Amino acid sequence: MRPLRNDTLLRALLRQPTEYTPIWLMRQAGRYLPEYCATRERAQDFLTLCKSPNLATEVTLQPLARYDLDAAILFSDILTIPDAMGLGLYFAPGEGPKFERPLREEWEIRDLTAPDPYDHLRYVLDAVAEIRRALDGSVPLIGFSGSPFTLACYMVEGEGSDQYLKLKTLLYSRPDLLHHILEVNTRAVTDYLNAQIESGAQAVMVFDSWGGMLTQAAYLEFSLPYIARIMAGLKRENEGRVVPRIVFTKGGGLWLEHIAGCGCDAVGLDWAIDIGEARRRVGDRVALQGNMDPAVLFGPPERVAAEARAILASFGPGPGHVFNLGHGISQFTPPQNVRVLVDTVKSESRAYHKA
Amino acid sequence: MRPLRNDTLLRALLRQPTEYTPIWLMRQAGRYLPEYCATRERAQDFLTLCKSPNLATEVTLQPLARYDLDAAILFSDILTIPDAMGLGLYFAPGEGPKFERPLREEWEIRDLTAPDPYDHLRYVLDAVAEIRRALDGSVPLIGFSGSPFTLACYMVEGEGSDQYLKLKTLLYSRPDLLHHILEVNTRAVTDYLNAQIESGAQAVMVFDSWGGMLTQAAYLEFSLPYIARIMAGLKRENEGRVVPRIVFTKGGGLWLEHIAGCGCDAVGLDWAIDIGEARRRVGDRVALQGNMDPAVLFGPPERVAAEARAILASFGPGPGHVFNLGHGISQFTPPQNVRVLVDTVKSESRAYHKA
Repeated sequence: MRPLRNDTLLRALLRQPTEYTPIWLMRQAGRYLPEYCATRERAQDFLTLCKSPNLATEVTLQPLARYDLDAAILFSDILTIPDAMGLGLYFAPGEGPKFERPLREEWEIRDLTAPDPYDHLRYVLDAVAEIRRALDGSVPLIGFSGSPFTLACYMVEGEGSDQYLKLKTLLYSRPDLLHHILEVNTRAVTDYLNAQIESGAQAVMVFDSWGGMLTQAAYLEFSLPYIARIMAGLKRENEGRVVPRIVFTKGGGLWLEHIAGCGCDAVGLDWAIDIGEARRRVGDRVALQGNMDPAVLFGPPERVAAEARAILASFGPGPGHVFNLGHGISQFTPPQNVRVLVDTVKSESRAYHKA
Repeated sequence: MRPLRNDTLLRALLRQPTEYTPIWLMRQAGRYLPEYCATRERAQDFLTLCKSPNLATEVTLQPLARYDLDAAILFSDILTIPDAMGLGLYFAPGEGPKFERPLREEWEIRDLTAPDPYDHLRYVLDAVAEIRRALDGSVPLIGFSGSPFTLACYMVEGEGSDQYLKLKTLLYSRPDLLHHILEVNTRAVTDYLNAQIESGAQAVMVFDSWGGMLTQAAYLEFSLPYIARIMAGLKRENEGRVVPRIVFTKGGGLWLEHIAGCGCDAVGLDWAIDIGEARRRVGDRVALQGNMDPAVLFGPPERVAAEARAILASFGPGPGHVFNLGHGISQFTPPQNVRVLVDTVKSESRAYHKA
């Protein structure tokens, strides 16, 4: 394998100088790409796609063949850990992820154990290794996991939810049991991300997709401390380089200062917050990743370019910005607008990185 | 009609001294109450219930018969205005509100006109008057409307949505057309709320349920300025008293300082923000309404009481707090926990209001 030729992302995540603002997009390998849909059709279903290292590698690389992106992100599902715990992940056609055996009884919660990733999540690690070989040093590979709290949401509800009343009922009536689930999930996520690093992930990201539905007090009790423990438990270096960590709590803009102190190198931002204000609030403690509304990509190309320029200008000069969307790209996105976005960021950001 | 005997809510909204922290609950007349379900069954469907002043009065008063609440809120739907504009509101069984004729074509948007509330929304004004007579001065009546932006979301999408891609596509590709809808809606909401005030509403609230899905820049262009124009256009007094205005943008915690400057007397808070931090941010500019997570009501009574005490303590001593939930009460809420909440707030808040 050749050495990494484009390390712009890794430097930006560590707030080191770069020549331009690197860009990648959450869910960049996804249904808005016809070639992704073709591979998925061959795989029959989404889980087979996730569990086949060959196919996962194929779709991970697809957006990089089209666009001048600065990172690949492992193609996988956020719920692989609870699946490996035995909850039975499945996807009903036209619906989101579900579990055959959600946590309903106290004994089920007490029985929960963290899976050995080298055993039950081998297929993910194989995919990481195969993607690294296929990338051949072109750009870095980002590994990821759901946060302990976000995994717990799905494990308790058994599926996605608007209000997560089962989870919140547990939180407000049996916080001890929720803390037990979170303890196990924290061990599992730490082991899982370390195994991804050992298999070749060059940066890692924790997706706290549902932490934003908590009160501040509950977020600071049930989500962030567990993320902080993961940060403390991760391998700091691999292959002679620091492995940067990104933490993204969707809807967490109010708690930015807290998140910036959790031990991560970069904080992911959704689109609700102005990135310039976010930068003023975190100072030089962390890099920032984000934060264009994915819906901007439904506007005309001029508007896409204008919104990208506005975000670059709001962040301002200097290092520490990784351009991204504020949430995963929509399956209905016109692919040609992604090119406009990537090219605009790559060219127009250079002015903000002059020495 | 007797004069108002409990004006605690009106004083708190204007940051005047009170003996305790007043409390009411968003959606307090709703499906968690068996007596509400009984009335709704008699009415056949939800829209008949809304459009019958007799039945709307009956359900408005139901929670006041059970709990020691400090306000009634008009029972109505948030989408009465677009219905009166001719979009054809209906409720499919088991689904949310929908429009038969959502705005799809430019000419439909150009043809939009603000309805005369005394004509097409007479049934709402009749309900306001009848509720006032039935309350007979016991507690004040709050009138309400959706915000221009939130109404526009439904008018463009035709129904509820996760991502509001139709609305956002319009916003990013034809902002001129969205501004036109918002102009008409602003006129309509102003006329509607003024008619409610003239019919007897003693405070009014604007629900900006969907403003929180915007970027800050878009919120400050497409939602808040229109709310500010409504504030400027509302009758300030009626029956010799100031009519306080509450503005609630769900998910708007990051923009609190902006919202506090829109001309309202009180800002509604969802549960994501710590109310003490919110108070420090707005200073003495506005009162605050909120902000318990409705899911707390699924915990045991001790937890409900503890969370209520924590919110009272976080706000701290002095006037300007109206206790409420951070969102509408869930239909699955155990009614006995609502009593625990109301009684805890009424008794324990007195310590924060000593002269």
